[in-house]
Amino acid sequence: MQLADLATPSLILDLQRMETNVSRLRSHLDSLGVGLRAHVKTCKSIEVARTMMASPRGPITVSTLREAEEFFAQGVTDILYAVGIAPGKLGAVQSLRARGCDLMVVVDHPEAARAVAQCRAGIPVLIEIDCDGQRAGIKPHDSALLRIAETLAHGADLRGVMTHAGGSYLCRNPNEMRSMAEQERRAVTDAAASLRAAGFPTPIVSVGSTPTAHFATQLGGVTEVRAGVFVFMDLVMVGLGVCGLEDVAISVLTTVIGHRQDRGWILTDGGWMALSRDRGTAHHEIDQGLGLVCDESGRPLPNLIVSDANQEHGILLHRDGTPIDYGAFPIGTRLRVLPNHACATAAQHGRYHCVRNSASVVGTWPRFGGW
Amino acid sequence: MQLADLATPSLILDLQRMETNVSRLRSHLDSLGVGLRAHVKTCKSIEVARTMMASPRGPITVSTLREAEEFFAQGVTDILYAVGIAPGKLGAVQSLRARGCDLMVVVDHPEAARAVAQCRAGIPVLIEIDCDGQRAGIKPHDSALLRIAETLAHGADLRGVMTHAGGSYLCRNPNEMRSMAEQERRAVTDAAASLRAAGFPTPIVSVGSTPTAHFATQLGGVTEVRAGVFVFMDLVMVGLGVCGLEDVAISVLTTVIGHRQDRGWILTDGGWMALSRDRGTAHHEIDQGLGLVCDESGRPLPNLIVSDANQEHGILLHRDGTPIDYGAFPIGTRLRVLPNHACATAAQHGRYHCVRNSASVVGTWPRFGGW
Repeated sequence: MQLADLATPSLILDLQRMETNVSRLRSHLDSLGVGLRAHVKTCKSIEVARTMMASPRGPITVSTLREAEEFFAQGVTDILYAVGIAPGKLGAVQSLRARGCDLMVVVDHPEAARAVAQCRAGIPVLIEIDCDGQRAGIKPHDSALLRIAETLAHGADLRGVMTHAGGSYLCRNPNEMRSMAEQERRAVTDAAASLRAAGFPTPIVSVGSTPTAHFATQLGGVTEVRAGVFVFMDLVMVGLGVCGLEDVAISVLTTVIGHRQDRGWILTDGGWMALSRDRGTAHHEIDQGLGLVCDESGRPLPNLIVSDANQEHGILLHRDGTPIDYGAFPIGTRLRVLPNHACATAAQHGRYHCVRNSASVVGTWPRFGGW
Repeated sequence: MQLADLATPSLILDLQRMETNVSRLRSHLDSLGVGLRAHVKTCKSIEVARTMMASPRGPITVSTLREAEEFFAQGVTDILYAVGIAPGKLGAVQSLRARGCDLMVVVDHPEAARAVAQCRAGIPVLIEIDCDGQRAGIKPHDSALLRIAETLAHGADLRGVMTHAGGSYLCRNPNEMRSMAEQERRAVTDAAASLRAAGFPTPIVSVGSTPTAHFATQLGGVTEVRAGVFVFMDLVMVGLGVCGLEDVAISVLTTVIGHRQDRGWILTDGGWMALSRDRGTAHHEIDQGLGLVCDESGRPLPNLIVSDANQEHGILLHRDGTPIDYGAFPIGTRLRVLPNHACATAAQHGRYHCVRNSASVVGTWPRFGGW
């Protein structure tokens, strides 16, 4: 099968680029002496996950219990569910653990810690630390840290601490990125030191975001890095200087369905349903709209972006306002769109059509969604 | 089963509200003497579609051939695929028609018309008319109209004209909305008149958008109205004055997983994966963020919105900046979020959990996605 045989819109995955992305992060983390616990929320595909795991059993990070269930069904057992646990989900956690899944959960509040401890099931827990004020977690020096640890001691299994430097997405240059990586490391190693000083062993010290994983220059005291977007990369990562356009491994294949010469638009069948509504580059130096357009072979057309979209219509225009040569884009022309955010765009699709630096489709890999 | 038994996040559909929404539009269109060809891109569910169709065979409007396939498999045969046809999709169109589906397609370009005509299969076609410069279509008085009609005469079956007043989403008051409905009607009836004057019968004259469908005061010359969002309504429709908050029939059930008192935030397990990234109210007088929060019973908490989200984290805050009473939202509290855009939010879910003005789940209706 060839790209030309695929119905549009379709999600294309370039395996060559994906493998290069995985090798690159693995080499970097090897040089820092730290393991990778890949975040599979980006791919939701066992085939993709296998390129990132140290062994068929893991380790992986998940964002939903559905991911834990699906990957456990494929033989993965070393799983961190990295979203603060809702007490109502503890039954499902215990069920997975009873079937042999070494599933760990995360807490950042004494009430959640109490709910986990009250299961009296030795559920392994990481305490979430806030390193940048961007999302969840407690500050490394918050007195709640030890209160949570003590609560967990009565019925749960405190394994360590974790943090996520979401603030890396706001950094504007490599220096800020390196500082953010160090801030992330520091937050979680400080918390680990407090816990150890109070008699809690804290074997796991986990950090993670694709930008900080790549920009970290030393990870002393950290035992594992979580990252997900790195496997595919996207325009947000390009804008942050984490990678180049030639590293973005997924794209959405679309077809030209209309010309609005009076508006300077090309219309395609790739709307927000196929691209997602993610506008992650809106505040970057280069705003990529809803995605950057490439020809069918994947060569970027750097002046052509998806400027807007309806559910199943993409609206393309020249970002500099120069006229489009419509003769170069007859109705039926196939184009590929690089996504702002790999997690969001991939989530709109049920499968990856795999290529390897050519127009041959060498495989079709399913992906799942839902909770 | 009760709402309290559902895992979160989950999509909730209030059947009572949905039925009221359907009755309301149907009564209005009955009073104008025009039929409804419901757009099922919003629901992607046969159970929902059945509440909107005049008969088990339709009519419906679809945005993808996958929708045509799925609804045809459920016995629906009168289907308009309302996105400009890509020539590469004509094989699938012919296959559906050969199996008994009366599938119509849309064109707005001579090249697309030629591709349809060259099938020599009598494929029924509507010519798309542009009424507001917002998306696809040719202007009603564009000379291309008759060229397309003549091209179609040699192998296709020209059935009429259609338009979509996407510009209604930019209207700011009822007067503008009524004008837009009239502008939509006028564009398509003018085009029909030109075609008829040239000898093309043009039996179908189709308009559609939820706002114009509701604000239209006369639809002389129009034979059918297409609308989809009306079945569920959403915060965009509330902001446009099409309905009230009490009419929004879908919501996302979530659980409180954290408190960030230092930031004035509540964290939930309802992130953008469950809500979508749609920001359709961003330019409204009332910006609803990523959604307006309700208690578990569906009662709006008008000061509490989802201000931001990560993939599986929702960040809630008071829009007026006043302090949150965290005691009222302990970890594990269930909340419901009204969506900006029903199509986008529903698309993130695989099923509807149906309620009827109470906490009892009276049914689970599947929905599909993909192309």
